[in-house]
Amino acid sequence: MDTPAPIQEPDRLTLARRAMEAARVDALVVTHLPNVFYLAGFSGSSGGLLLLPDALHLFTDSRYTIQAREETPAARTHIVSGPLADAVGALLRGLRRRGRLRAAYDPGRLSLAEWTRLKRAAGPRTAWKPVPGLVERLREVKSEAELDAMRAAAALGSEVMEEVIGLVKPGVTELDLAAEIDYRMRRKGASASSFESIVASGPRSALPHAQPTAKRVAKSELVVLDLGAILQRYCSDLTRTVYVGRAPAEVRRWYRAVEQAQKAALEALQAGVAAGAVDRAARGVLNRARLGRFFVHSTGHGLGIEVHESPRLGRGQAQEIRVGNVVTLEPGVYVEGKGGIRIEDDVVVHAHGTEVLTSAPRSLLEL
Amino acid sequence: MDTPAPIQEPDRLTLARRAMEAARVDALVVTHLPNVFYLAGFSGSSGGLLLLPDALHLFTDSRYTIQAREETPAARTHIVSGPLADAVGALLRGLRRRGRLRAAYDPGRLSLAEWTRLKRAAGPRTAWKPVPGLVERLREVKSEAELDAMRAAAALGSEVMEEVIGLVKPGVTELDLAAEIDYRMRRKGASASSFESIVASGPRSALPHAQPTAKRVAKSELVVLDLGAILQRYCSDLTRTVYVGRAPAEVRRWYRAVEQAQKAALEALQAGVAAGAVDRAARGVLNRARLGRFFVHSTGHGLGIEVHESPRLGRGQAQEIRVGNVVTLEPGVYVEGKGGIRIEDDVVVHAHGTEVLTSAPRSLLEL
Repeated sequence: MDTPAPIQEPDRLTLARRAMEAARVDALVVTHLPNVFYLAGFSGSSGGLLLLPDALHLFTDSRYTIQAREETPAARTHIVSGPLADAVGALLRGLRRRGRLRAAYDPGRLSLAEWTRLKRAAGPRTAWKPVPGLVERLREVKSEAELDAMRAAAALGSEVMEEVIGLVKPGVTELDLAAEIDYRMRRKGASASSFESIVASGPRSALPHAQPTAKRVAKSELVVLDLGAILQRYCSDLTRTVYVGRAPAEVRRWYRAVEQAQKAALEALQAGVAAGAVDRAARGVLNRARLGRFFVHSTGHGLGIEVHESPRLGRGQAQEIRVGNVVTLEPGVYVEGKGGIRIEDDVVVHAHGTEVLTSAPRSLLEL
Repeated sequence: MDTPAPIQEPDRLTLARRAMEAARVDALVVTHLPNVFYLAGFSGSSGGLLLLPDALHLFTDSRYTIQAREETPAARTHIVSGPLADAVGALLRGLRRRGRLRAAYDPGRLSLAEWTRLKRAAGPRTAWKPVPGLVERLREVKSEAELDAMRAAAALGSEVMEEVIGLVKPGVTELDLAAEIDYRMRRKGASASSFESIVASGPRSALPHAQPTAKRVAKSELVVLDLGAILQRYCSDLTRTVYVGRAPAEVRRWYRAVEQAQKAALEALQAGVAAGAVDRAARGVLNRARLGRFFVHSTGHGLGIEVHESPRLGRGQAQEIRVGNVVTLEPGVYVEGKGGIRIEDDVVVHAHGTEVLTSAPRSLLEL
């Protein structure tokens, strides 16, 4: 019996060109760097793309001449010394066309100054159409290869979380723990942290985005650890909260409510539901525990090449969850002057069920 | 004899309001986060300011309620759930005025989508004036307190550079060295790296912005190390290049040329000259050594809250160097297939002379 040929996924440029057809445009301008990387593999800190039905143009500067050739052999590369928008516009102006050329741009990904230059350089024979999020929509649905990278990034982050929880004790500073997190992720192969690692202890744990300080961890404190690794270009993002000592009843009650809110979100998460329904599930649990007003952010966000991408799991979000989405589920409770609790995991939406990528222990650890 | 009172520098809000007067505007919209931090001390990842002659408004979301109060007590804080641009615009619309209110915005720091929202929300009784770089111009001139932070950040980076150069030997990977760099900076008190640390060996050193890989350092290779620390919110940025083994004559010649190019730039750097003159000085040395075509980037950039800020020391830049500027001087030579050399230091422009902040040895180290 012959082995069946593996199902070939259409490549990313093909998907983008289909989306261009659906939007009825002949050209797509891509300026957001994670989108440039997704479509073309180019990872420099300065770059833009012009995608046409039959060609791909990459624009960057002379620092990246060699790198562009290595990373993006399929593109025609333009090494530009002035603003990229001028060069993209000039190329559009020079394209042969019948009638006006219809070009898509993303108003959320171009500065007003770039937009002004682009439009002027392209001239009057280009008709512009705003198409927000065309590439971001493609990026929401991860391929098997992307999921493999994300599984590895999540496993790495989970390992480091377990190790660093073992280092939490009275006297260690938040900065010490953050340094250990970043070092251990790098030593295990991460190219970088997905974001500035958060270590927040005591009353500082009530700040959802606290930056680590020289403050020392003390007995009878909550400690929130929020970390993520970039591995093979994909991000992980997970949070655990521990208590130094034996947690009082109030803290246990908060913790249980956050745990249950996360469970409710995980149960609600499936293809076809609105993103807002996942948020509602988590928020409902915290509301019923009379902790709703302490849950000051949304339940989660998409994860991939960027640590925050679409879909967003926020209040009232109508966008539909799809198979292949990877999102964080991260309800929290933050009580000013006392402390905060957050539990965060990364979850893939499959056709039948979900897959939790992160694995560090989720129950309240009392150290 | 009485000690004279220390000269009081005008505070940043006062300077910004003077610049508003000079630009003949009644309001300033600030969206770029480093500018928000500079003017208001707020360090969250989402925030905007509206500066008026008699008030300062901070806009952020509910994750930062507590942090905003702590960091920016002088501002009136608005916790916003939708796009910040809507809230800023609505506040502008509601302001009492005689005639139209003139508001400044920066077309390079607003997305087209944000601009559209802002303008619509503010309504027809606000007259908009594009004023690019108003806050960036203030940030170019560092105060004594800022210089102290930058001296400390540069000293920290220099120490780590010396230590990590000691770890360069055959067999160690680029990623290992990058992990050591980041860890040692954190252990010495840095809150983060200024940018993703660069360790590039052998032919990879010919990529000016190489990302570290699992490649092992080998004998007879150039290794470029480019690192920087953020300390007290200010960045350092320095580069050293070493040779593993005894460098051949060609490499020594390149190195000498880069060294001399940096010296020439340092001599050219003074208040009153055009930024482009500093670039020309470095480029002239490399041109005369017939290495000009291998110098694929500009000579340096401003440094401060951001690792790349104005002034830029690029070809033909007319902007005048001023007392209080802090810039990098970083000529380089990059030969595809062979390797690259870059030497980078951070330099303050004083009224009489310059001050080099970074201190790791600058001559060719053969390890």
